[in-house]
Amino acid sequence: MAQKPSIPKGTRDFGPSEMMGRNYIFSTVKDVFRKYGYPCIETPSMENLGTLLGKYGDEGDKLLFRIQNSGEKAALAPEKGLRYDLTVPFARFVVQHQNEISFPFKRYQIQPVWRADRPQKGRYREFYQCDVDVIGSKSLLNELELVQIVDEVFGRLGVRVCLKINNRKILSGLAEVSGQPDKLVDMTVAIDKIDKVGLDAVKEELFEKGLTEKAVATIEPVLTLSGTTEEKIARMRTLLAGSETGMKGLEETETLFGLIAAAGIRQEVELDLSLARGLNYYTGAIFEVKALDWAIGSICGGGRYDDLTGIFGLPGMSGVGISFGADRIYDVLQGLDLFPEGSAASASVLFTNMGEKEAAYAVSLASAFRAEGVACEVYPDNTKLKKQFEYADRKGIPWLAIVGDQEVSSGTVTLKNLASGEQQTLPKEKAVTVVK
Amino acid sequence: MAQKPSIPKGTRDFGPSEMMGRNYIFSTVKDVFRKYGYPCIETPSMENLGTLLGKYGDEGDKLLFRIQNSGEKAALAPEKGLRYDLTVPFARFVVQHQNEISFPFKRYQIQPVWRADRPQKGRYREFYQCDVDVIGSKSLLNELELVQIVDEVFGRLGVRVCLKINNRKILSGLAEVSGQPDKLVDMTVAIDKIDKVGLDAVKEELFEKGLTEKAVATIEPVLTLSGTTEEKIARMRTLLAGSETGMKGLEETETLFGLIAAAGIRQEVELDLSLARGLNYYTGAIFEVKALDWAIGSICGGGRYDDLTGIFGLPGMSGVGISFGADRIYDVLQGLDLFPEGSAASASVLFTNMGEKEAAYAVSLASAFRAEGVACEVYPDNTKLKKQFEYADRKGIPWLAIVGDQEVSSGTVTLKNLASGEQQTLPKEKAVTVVK
Repeated sequence: MAQKPSIPKGTRDFGPSEMMGRNYIFSTVKDVFRKYGYPCIETPSMENLGTLLGKYGDEGDKLLFRIQNSGEKAALAPEKGLRYDLTVPFARFVVQHQNEISFPFKRYQIQPVWRADRPQKGRYREFYQCDVDVIGSKSLLNELELVQIVDEVFGRLGVRVCLKINNRKILSGLAEVSGQPDKLVDMTVAIDKIDKVGLDAVKEELFEKGLTEKAVATIEPVLTLSGTTEEKIARMRTLLAGSETGMKGLEETETLFGLIAAAGIRQEVELDLSLARGLNYYTGAIFEVKALDWAIGSICGGGRYDDLTGIFGLPGMSGVGISFGADRIYDVLQGLDLFPEGSAASASVLFTNMGEKEAAYAVSLASAFRAEGVACEVYPDNTKLKKQFEYADRKGIPWLAIVGDQEVSSGTVTLKNLASGEQQTLPKEKAVTVVK
Repeated sequence: MAQKPSIPKGTRDFGPSEMMGRNYIFSTVKDVFRKYGYPCIETPSMENLGTLLGKYGDEGDKLLFRIQNSGEKAALAPEKGLRYDLTVPFARFVVQHQNEISFPFKRYQIQPVWRADRPQKGRYREFYQCDVDVIGSKSLLNELELVQIVDEVFGRLGVRVCLKINNRKILSGLAEVSGQPDKLVDMTVAIDKIDKVGLDAVKEELFEKGLTEKAVATIEPVLTLSGTTEEKIARMRTLLAGSETGMKGLEETETLFGLIAAAGIRQEVELDLSLARGLNYYTGAIFEVKALDWAIGSICGGGRYDDLTGIFGLPGMSGVGISFGADRIYDVLQGLDLFPEGSAASASVLFTNMGEKEAAYAVSLASAFRAEGVACEVYPDNTKLKKQFEYADRKGIPWLAIVGDQEVSSGTVTLKNLASGEQQTLPKEKAVTVVK
């Protein structure tokens, strides 16, 4: 194989520095999820094709990666496909294990998903999703908890965000009072694009989908409604007075905003009546998070669904969940230079290797450093010091511990700070405190 | 879909308690890898089929999961397969990114692999591998480092193990002095099974593969050699005197055992001359780890390879690596009851929900607890207390924080320890210290 090897289109290798950044994001969200009592689950990468087909629309079915059956009984085995998202496998999991789990059932799940989409900038055929859901409870305290989680995650990451909230029932009510309740899906699909295409294009799509002038005239002012949350709710209360569903949506929204105010959320939270989210299974609150200081699409989103598990034979299980977009969050942190300093280095100290005896001494020092929690390496080969310096430099290791003949015989170590260039020879017991 | 949903044969769902155990293992190994300066990389789940084919023998080729190409240009796209192990993708990564990485290159990688094997007890079609390697250095300090890592990982997990070491060059030397150097591969494959099938069956296989009486008579005493490491090496030195390769293997082994003795390894380490390991790419030291107190196959293994990247066009890169078997380590920890206590609970405290006002108070208390690092949940629904108790009980949550009318008005919280049944009402500021 003379050609340089490559990987499939739309997939990625993640090297050490990218993984440090990614793991920083994953460990931050996991830590927050755990503090709120959400345990982790994992489901298989492959699902039976029947579990996946028909759950993502015709377009989604086409984007499933199918796996060829192999072996003698290939023709008899059920067809399999790679996981397309974490929501359908979660629903399948809940139904399959309903007798083993206690409801309300909370879980988080961080795993890759695969889509045979045409690869392009920012769109991959393999990417991680990072979902957190609670199922089996209708209480709005669950919505509050997800808002708290969003607040804490982005607070810890140092990203200023706006959390936009709306409620599907308000949109249903709007479809009702506009006189075309049957057009709800077309309406949400069109409205969902307002951020990308603008108001005029949304109106055009609404007309194309067969909404009347009157209906669009009812909807339009709502999409551009300004003012405080209270003002927006008051205005909508008048508009939706004729729709029971719409009024229920307003009531839920008012309660949720009350809970949010009491909980002392630090990030910006906004009632955005133009927020629609394309997915059909949402039935209550819907969420979307945007970074305030970096232009990129939504970095987190979700909502309440009343019947996700019905497709697998367990109806009436209400739940609510959100999903963090790790790839986009990575771009935001990198763009705003928010990754913590030093997080790119795999070790804090590199011990030099200047010969057999010196290396043996370095190995014992390194063990002592590690026992104090300091990550360190011993350069394995006795090569020129310059090469060992360069190794530390390229890996971003901040300290060099030089151990030559003199250090061995005097029981010391010479610490060199690679940023400042300063260097000092210390008794070995003291060196570790300087590095720490 | 009336039928209960299911997952493909040979795959697994991991629920909360299994994931806690698995994550405990993964975070322990990761923490040790990091302390030794090994950063993480990840490679795509799918590789081009050309990258995978021919790397695992004919049998391996048959066990690859292939992915169907979809879309209009399906016929033109290169065929793809799911990752079969982490070693070949690592070799591909090193060659593809050789200009971006600094050698010696260390990395760890923890990702699932897929094999279309016939599923059976303990053998799955999807399972995690957990590999740590260093490539681009011939120094035996790398072997020592892997031994230190094994020592520290199992020390932290509380598992007593025996780390068995041998060297492929010793086996090559043995093949030479037995007069049949061309039979090295057959020899290692046969010897590798000695633990499972016993000495007689190994001898039988050796005869079947065409080894002479004389050759088997040379090999046999080595397989059952006892005594100290020094004694074994002395004995082998006489036997292998005529083989340059064999003598080199003995020298490497002697040096490595010297380094191990100086480094103060706490676990048992043994020179096992019958250790062979089936994989063909090993060329120097080979390792295998067995649990001393639980009967199961090897739980960790690896070795040195001199030319892993040659297949992708980068020859002469020597490396050494080991792989931890997460599934078997899980079985050992469970069998010996070594998972840390309380690790199964997703939260330390459950706050009760006894109404709107009480829940609002509980939410604010929970935030204060979380700020102190205590994982806690607020029960989302105002249901019977008995149901809330049962929820805590089933999830293994050790503390119940009861917040009723009285607690709200007096600014207190009633903490109940679910194990002891003891209960006390405390000012809210003090409660968190009791739980911590």
